[in-house]
Amino acid sequence: MRKLLLLVLCMPFMAQAQMNQDSITIKKMADEIMTNGKAYDLLYQLTKKIGGRLAGSPQQQNAAIWGKRNMEAFKPDNVYMQPCKTPNWQRGGKDFGAIVGVNGKAVNEKLEVLALGNSLGSNGLIEAELLAVASFDELEKRKAEVKGKIVYFNSEFDPTLIQTFRAYGASGVYRRSGASRAAKYGAVGVMIHSLSSAPDNAPHTGAMVYNDSLPKIPAVALGPDDAKALYAQSKKSTLRVQMQTYGFFLPDADENNVVAEIKGSTFPNEIITIGGHLDSWDVNEGAHDDGAGIVQTMEILRTMKAVNYQPKRTIRFVLFANEENGGRGGAKYAELAKLNNEKHIFALESDEGGFTPRSIGISCTPAQFSKFQQWTPLLKPYGAEITAGGGGADIGPLTTVDKSTVLAGLVPDSQRYFDLHHAKTDVFENVNKRELLLGAVNIAAVIYLVDQYGVQP
Amino acid sequence: MRKLLLLVLCMPFMAQAQMNQDSITIKKMADEIMTNGKAYDLLYQLTKKIGGRLAGSPQQQNAAIWGKRNMEAFKPDNVYMQPCKTPNWQRGGKDFGAIVGVNGKAVNEKLEVLALGNSLGSNGLIEAELLAVASFDELEKRKAEVKGKIVYFNSEFDPTLIQTFRAYGASGVYRRSGASRAAKYGAVGVMIHSLSSAPDNAPHTGAMVYNDSLPKIPAVALGPDDAKALYAQSKKSTLRVQMQTYGFFLPDADENNVVAEIKGSTFPNEIITIGGHLDSWDVNEGAHDDGAGIVQTMEILRTMKAVNYQPKRTIRFVLFANEENGGRGGAKYAELAKLNNEKHIFALESDEGGFTPRSIGISCTPAQFSKFQQWTPLLKPYGAEITAGGGGADIGPLTTVDKSTVLAGLVPDSQRYFDLHHAKTDVFENVNKRELLLGAVNIAAVIYLVDQYGVQP
Repeated sequence: MRKLLLLVLCMPFMAQAQMNQDSITIKKMADEIMTNGKAYDLLYQLTKKIGGRLAGSPQQQNAAIWGKRNMEAFKPDNVYMQPCKTPNWQRGGKDFGAIVGVNGKAVNEKLEVLALGNSLGSNGLIEAELLAVASFDELEKRKAEVKGKIVYFNSEFDPTLIQTFRAYGASGVYRRSGASRAAKYGAVGVMIHSLSSAPDNAPHTGAMVYNDSLPKIPAVALGPDDAKALYAQSKKSTLRVQMQTYGFFLPDADENNVVAEIKGSTFPNEIITIGGHLDSWDVNEGAHDDGAGIVQTMEILRTMKAVNYQPKRTIRFVLFANEENGGRGGAKYAELAKLNNEKHIFALESDEGGFTPRSIGISCTPAQFSKFQQWTPLLKPYGAEITAGGGGADIGPLTTVDKSTVLAGLVPDSQRYFDLHHAKTDVFENVNKRELLLGAVNIAAVIYLVDQYGVQP
Repeated sequence: MRKLLLLVLCMPFMAQAQMNQDSITIKKMADEIMTNGKAYDLLYQLTKKIGGRLAGSPQQQNAAIWGKRNMEAFKPDNVYMQPCKTPNWQRGGKDFGAIVGVNGKAVNEKLEVLALGNSLGSNGLIEAELLAVASFDELEKRKAEVKGKIVYFNSEFDPTLIQTFRAYGASGVYRRSGASRAAKYGAVGVMIHSLSSAPDNAPHTGAMVYNDSLPKIPAVALGPDDAKALYAQSKKSTLRVQMQTYGFFLPDADENNVVAEIKGSTFPNEIITIGGHLDSWDVNEGAHDDGAGIVQTMEILRTMKAVNYQPKRTIRFVLFANEENGGRGGAKYAELAKLNNEKHIFALESDEGGFTPRSIGISCTPAQFSKFQQWTPLLKPYGAEITAGGGGADIGPLTTVDKSTVLAGLVPDSQRYFDLHHAKTDVFENVNKRELLLGAVNIAAVIYLVDQYGVQP
């Protein structure tokens, strides 16, 4: 009954017959994906046969070659590499952390830690008193106490934020800039609560950035259990802690975006991009982040060819080279878009995990949004809807070239993402085949609709 | 903007101020659950400290005592047992299956199998030629070939059904009645494709029922990988297969529903029930099925007491004794409702897993549904909405006592459920804490609203 009501509401805006035809085409693609989908098998290859693939690593190189070879097999009009330089950060060793003193008494309590990405090594063992603070506000208030200490930021997630990306946004600033904020007042090292609400003790790495005008002190994330225990203990006792990290940079590496293309029959100069990023952190298999986005992108290419879909506009399937610790893949893609005077009307990224899809989020004008919202009834059978706001780190730079480019993102259910994001638990086994394929179905549906109807309101 | 629109649409039906108050109360409960929720810890105890708990087992007895003790600690007005007899099926041994001949040539290919619940043992090893059929239709067409054979039903899920319960419904009939349908034509044993779309080989058990007028032949489910391989091979070759099972019944056991109650202040005779079932299959920990429903029920009791919520109507928190292979817990609850002349206005069950909630499904009159649908904006912040159709096996019998009782069910995302339902993979590790708690949040919200506004349109 509800479905009927929705259809009735849409009638004034959209010819019913046309909508039925769209529904049939989308179902054809959906059935192809759910029945013959290769995304899960491709993800197995990417995670188990190639593995973790930080920008600059041999694995990342192999992943690009693998992506090109596999997309070529699906017979698009064209597959090519876009060479780009990427950072080449090396973890350099097995990161170490421990509590070694409680109120002046020696203890030996190992902490589960991972150095933050882009952080530099400690140049040997650091030992210092711990200063634990809840926030930057508390740091500022206690700045006189910081000198010579290792600062712990309690960047724990707010569990009441139902959309976990909001919690990530609020806590993420400590990972990104905590080290320099503490170094400003003389801290010798930084520890943070992993950016995770997981009820376990696996630490989560992720990118940080130094302020070049301040000392570059080492920085680690603690496993959630250890972080909570350390913070609680710090309220009652004076703690001495140790840390040792090994991070360094090799010279920038030569990597590649991989681009497959199906030429549009009617508006070949209007480009629609779908993509995810090939690189992942070194400590896991990058299964959800962002193997899922990569294989969904490849799956949609496969499916459009399998059902003989000839797009009106040119569709690009892009495996971006470097998102995690530099964003160089997306920057290169936008740079070439500008250089080649390309017209990018729409770009969609899948980089929030291969979980069950809840919506396609779209950033656009209100008039465009009214148009796109009419597509919700076509997505509902596959569990999604059109919501406001969306994009991705790799496609974001396109708007610096042309601010009218509409950006979109797959919005999967976010409850599980930060349990495994950037931790050793982001492995193939934690991806569900049906959820992964269903994400591809909803992306394919929206790409099809944009191809058919463009982005003009 | 969409949320605003929804609010505006609802204004004629619902006082805005009242809705704001409801929103505040619901957020208070939600924050309590997401921050201090005990459901996950309780689930750990139930799955790891008690374990699989088929009706009649010592584990099921212990689970009821555990449930009573833990609910008492939350200080409701009353906690009591409802004794009931349950079936006492025993697996009796390690089920066995194998392919031992291909086109007359001896082979030894072990099959991953589990006897179906309620099926009787094979009384030693059975070996026979395999007759593989796609459906009951094919069985009927080939009935002359059945005698003396072991029949395989290819009860594979249709992967294009996005709501996996629909696929389960379509294939489930083979598990339930396949044995007797084949026995009618002289089959000596039955094998089915596990009722699962998992890309693995773990077999899934589950209840079957014999037609008492026909021979009670043994029945097993094959692991999905083995099932697909067997079916494909059967198209090209004549197969001989073996099976051995050990199922038998002990005399009916003495078990208990566990009921906690908070008395209503205004309408104490109007009863609202929330529940799940304590029993699980013997081969796993019953984590999603239905440990999740059990601990969500307990969590809502805990939360209502923690936030000092005094209901207008009487709320019952029920841990049903036996759902999987007999439905005796729900039958007893309804029997006592009738005996005690109770007025049950609303009953909600959580028995579709502890996955991220998508909706609360409600079975009621169209006029009632219009009322309930107005609550959707209050659930949206927690990821759910009100949808038509819902209930559960344990609460279903209440409508035989009073057909006006409104039945509802938590509808979690269904993509993963049948990967682990009734298989060894339904363990604590496969439950996500936030998803589990979020289910409790949405149930609590609807129970609160029913308590406040009743079920009259």
